[in-house]
Amino acid sequence: MNIGIVGLGLIGGSLGLDLRALGHQVLGVSRQERTCQVAIDRGVVDDASVNLTLLAAADVVFICTPIGQIASMVQQLIPHLSPNAILTDVGSVKTPVVEAVTPLWLNFVGGHPMAGREYSGIEAAVSGLFAGNPYVLTPIETTPPEAVKVVEQIVRSLTSNVYFCHPADHDQAVAWISHLPVMVSASLIHACGSETDPVVLELLQQLASSGFRDTSRVGGGNPELGVMMARYNREFLWRSLLNYRQSLDQLIELIDQENWKGLEQRLQETQAQRSQFHLKADD
Amino acid sequence: MNIGIVGLGLIGGSLGLDLRALGHQVLGVSRQERTCQVAIDRGVVDDASVNLTLLAAADVVFICTPIGQIASMVQQLIPHLSPNAILTDVGSVKTPVVEAVTPLWLNFVGGHPMAGREYSGIEAAVSGLFAGNPYVLTPIETTPPEAVKVVEQIVRSLTSNVYFCHPADHDQAVAWISHLPVMVSASLIHACGSETDPVVLELLQQLASSGFRDTSRVGGGNPELGVMMARYNREFLWRSLLNYRQSLDQLIELIDQENWKGLEQRLQETQAQRSQFHLKADD
Repeated sequence: MNIGIVGLGLIGGSLGLDLRALGHQVLGVSRQERTCQVAIDRGVVDDASVNLTLLAAADVVFICTPIGQIASMVQQLIPHLSPNAILTDVGSVKTPVVEAVTPLWLNFVGGHPMAGREYSGIEAAVSGLFAGNPYVLTPIETTPPEAVKVVEQIVRSLTSNVYFCHPADHDQAVAWISHLPVMVSASLIHACGSETDPVVLELLQQLASSGFRDTSRVGGGNPELGVMMARYNREFLWRSLLNYRQSLDQLIELIDQENWKGLEQRLQETQAQRSQFHLKADD
Repeated sequence: MNIGIVGLGLIGGSLGLDLRALGHQVLGVSRQERTCQVAIDRGVVDDASVNLTLLAAADVVFICTPIGQIASMVQQLIPHLSPNAILTDVGSVKTPVVEAVTPLWLNFVGGHPMAGREYSGIEAAVSGLFAGNPYVLTPIETTPPEAVKVVEQIVRSLTSNVYFCHPADHDQAVAWISHLPVMVSASLIHACGSETDPVVLELLQQLASSGFRDTSRVGGGNPELGVMMARYNREFLWRSLLNYRQSLDQLIELIDQENWKGLEQRLQETQAQRSQFHLKADD
């Protein structure tokens, strides 16, 4: 199959590596000449260009640009596409993307591979990034079943765990487990930085070990990505933040009242709740 | 050297493995006959007993019981100790321990190895648990320098990174980087559990991946340990929780006001602040 990838960063680049290994012809488009060259040199794509005309031969195109650019990229892309081409994206919020793109191109299937690394850019692209990780597809009532089937087959071939759901359900779920953690974690780092005693501040920076490292990881991540999450998933994130503050306040009250039995019950609850999540083993 | 260990759990057991490997004679005490037998079988100790008389020959004794039992254990231990014996503990809060134990036995050096695993108990004991991790010692004005030197030498021989500080500075620092993260992380799990739409609840449990896994890890840990932290470090933890809530409220306000520039600045700040911490690399 001829597969196009627009945006050769971590996700686009990693997709290219896997799809080529599966025998597809991969055509990449980036705004930067240098990125095209690196993509070719690293074997991420068969061919790359800064020009969208390269994608005239594509059967399927993955839009891997930042979420705010997806709809305008589709608009630019349309004049160059073959009429049966299928589009999909990898944006981490689905409602605004699906609402904006579907009227432009019916053969569109919203997607979200839930995989990442600390690093970004074509240099960070790796094989097998999606293997064993969730990959959500969010077709709606008007999405042609044939298009869904084609995208599903490609995604399954990456050995991702494929889930189907409505865009709004996706956005609500990721508000809880992906966007809320960023805000919770960033606030932890910020609070520690408010320590006013320089001796204690230096000490806490020295003593921080695995507990702090893990809890603060996503709060120390890419700021632009954090803003995008909040911006495009504002309502659901806001709701989850208010619920979170309520949970936090209850816990502060337990500690304030020295209600150790109540605190133990709460921590037993959270220990049990966490085991309900389908998490890969910790370290 | 003859080294005693009271309490053969994860920390006590791992200390035993390392200290024996360094050529010391290790004598272990546990309340459970079975634990003594496992400790001998696993090579954690040279000899073990449920009876404190075993420690008459000890030059140094590590008290590795839960924090609430340290002072009463020292009281029970005193009749059996040689007059020059040096005591140290591994409790994760230092002020209450140092205040309670120093009047009982002057040759006492408070300690806190900042190492851990998901698992607990003698079965979880491993070699090298302390290597490369912080190990804090909290001598006070009245602590005999000779006692400090002996404990320091042992701790350095584990290739830990040794820090000295006042018990209160330690407790303030760990409130931020160890105890606050537990409460922040537990509240995250609890908030996610408050989702009332069963479709979204199931979806979020399925989609949760590395970001949620890391941010929720310490909140899904041992409930008794969480309660001990809060109970023995209540004042400092309380203060850090209020500061944290303030940081969180500021962030919620930025999102409420759609102040994306402000949110980006905040996330840039937390990204930079996190790099000030001496953290082992994220994988």
